[in-house]
Amino acid sequence: MTDREPKKGCPPGHWRVRLLISYDGTAYSGWQRQDREQSVQGTVEKALSSLFAKPITLIGASRTDSGVHAIGQTAHFDAPRDPFKGDLRFAINGALPKDIVIRQAYHAPNNFHSIADAVKKTYRFKILNRRVPSALRNRYTWWVRNPLDLGLLNEASQHLVGSQDFKAFQSTGTVVKSTIRSIERAEWVKKPNDIVEFRITGDGFLKQMVRNIVGTLVDVNQNQQKPEEITRILQTLDRQNAGPTAPPQGLYLSRVFYPRTLDNECRKL
Amino acid sequence: MTDREPKKGCPPGHWRVRLLISYDGTAYSGWQRQDREQSVQGTVEKALSSLFAKPITLIGASRTDSGVHAIGQTAHFDAPRDPFKGDLRFAINGALPKDIVIRQAYHAPNNFHSIADAVKKTYRFKILNRRVPSALRNRYTWWVRNPLDLGLLNEASQHLVGSQDFKAFQSTGTVVKSTIRSIERAEWVKKPNDIVEFRITGDGFLKQMVRNIVGTLVDVNQNQQKPEEITRILQTLDRQNAGPTAPPQGLYLSRVFYPRTLDNECRKL
Repeated sequence: MTDREPKKGCPPGHWRVRLLISYDGTAYSGWQRQDREQSVQGTVEKALSSLFAKPITLIGASRTDSGVHAIGQTAHFDAPRDPFKGDLRFAINGALPKDIVIRQAYHAPNNFHSIADAVKKTYRFKILNRRVPSALRNRYTWWVRNPLDLGLLNEASQHLVGSQDFKAFQSTGTVVKSTIRSIERAEWVKKPNDIVEFRITGDGFLKQMVRNIVGTLVDVNQNQQKPEEITRILQTLDRQNAGPTAPPQGLYLSRVFYPRTLDNECRKL
Repeated sequence: MTDREPKKGCPPGHWRVRLLISYDGTAYSGWQRQDREQSVQGTVEKALSSLFAKPITLIGASRTDSGVHAIGQTAHFDAPRDPFKGDLRFAINGALPKDIVIRQAYHAPNNFHSIADAVKKTYRFKILNRRVPSALRNRYTWWVRNPLDLGLLNEASQHLVGSQDFKAFQSTGTVVKSTIRSIERAEWVKKPNDIVEFRITGDGFLKQMVRNIVGTLVDVNQNQQKPEEITRILQTLDRQNAGPTAPPQGLYLSRVFYPRTLDNECRKL
């Protein structure tokens, strides 16, 4: 789905391990390892390297931004010894800070690749929609004071579905071959305790695309524009015409999907 | 209900204000103002003092410990000018960090006193009860891996109800005239997403009493002891016989109750 990483098989004498990872992104510069920054990738790599007493490189399906959370990031690495001995998931969690948790560890086929094999991803964006902010949910939601109209938001979101050029919803900063992405589903759901949740599933997402979409949809709602405004913005292919970028703390990488045949070849560790 | 503060009326030319406050206790040394420590009381006092351009003292109903959260702390202060002008709640929230929120502000009767008039309090304690910890709920729950038996916990909790000497559940550090407290209700409830919640209502609580009770109840469950063990522990009047202190991040001051007549005299600002 992306051209960022060449697909390499597992070297001899190694075991390819697939991880399902959850994290609170607040304290991190994002998924991607960076010099002098605390990244999620770097933190998990450090735990794995100390556990296996060898340097380990971890490849994650999605480069989540600074402050963005994950319920189900997927990543893979090559273990230099049989990881079946003992409970790998608990061993890694014991070596990790409490804001990163390995939910599941699998022995994957030798050629499993978290980026190259991903077929689609689901993101969620949580908005606290009420008059008063929340001290206890500020870290995990975007507070929007004025009441949102879920009917309008859902109607507007239908204009995102399909294979389209999402250049207008791409933040600058990364070079990509194509800005065409295919959105399978985009919907808003009312949840308990004044939470409104946006869920979007697609084959790939441009830089800050979900946050730009959420910021724009909320803008269209608050400015009482028509749902078709989204199609107009898409057609301009110009970021200037879209709304503001919604803040990172409302965004969650929810799930990365792989072909079922590949899933079936993975064995829980 | 407590002998900690003398009940003083509002001085002439001032308006007594009652606040309903919620906070994430993670970053604070507790409610109580302390030298060189970041306290919730001190932080709200700073915001109020800057808003009214005069030093303000805030008196809170409960001295929550370091790391303990509040959904509904109640506090009062005397405003040196008419607080009716403008939306006081939003003005204070604008001057506060995002982990403290004024949920409601009232003009209270001149003699309203958040400590002296409190008749009872409810605390909640949230446990994440599942095999795998949670990166996203670690800050707000206590992770207990082994399955809890809510039937047993509820039966054991009934031994707490009534007027009794809770000395065995008091942590050392504060001098109190009496260790007798009256518990009206104590129950365990299953909530969604693997959360188990303990709710306890009483006329007053000793130092770390709720956390000591929760730690002990979980201990009784895990050690497969009988519910009556709680009565035995109470009778010894000895902290050594109770279980460990549950961690602060699961505890929430949920609500402080005042006589209905006093509530009716409070006017929303």
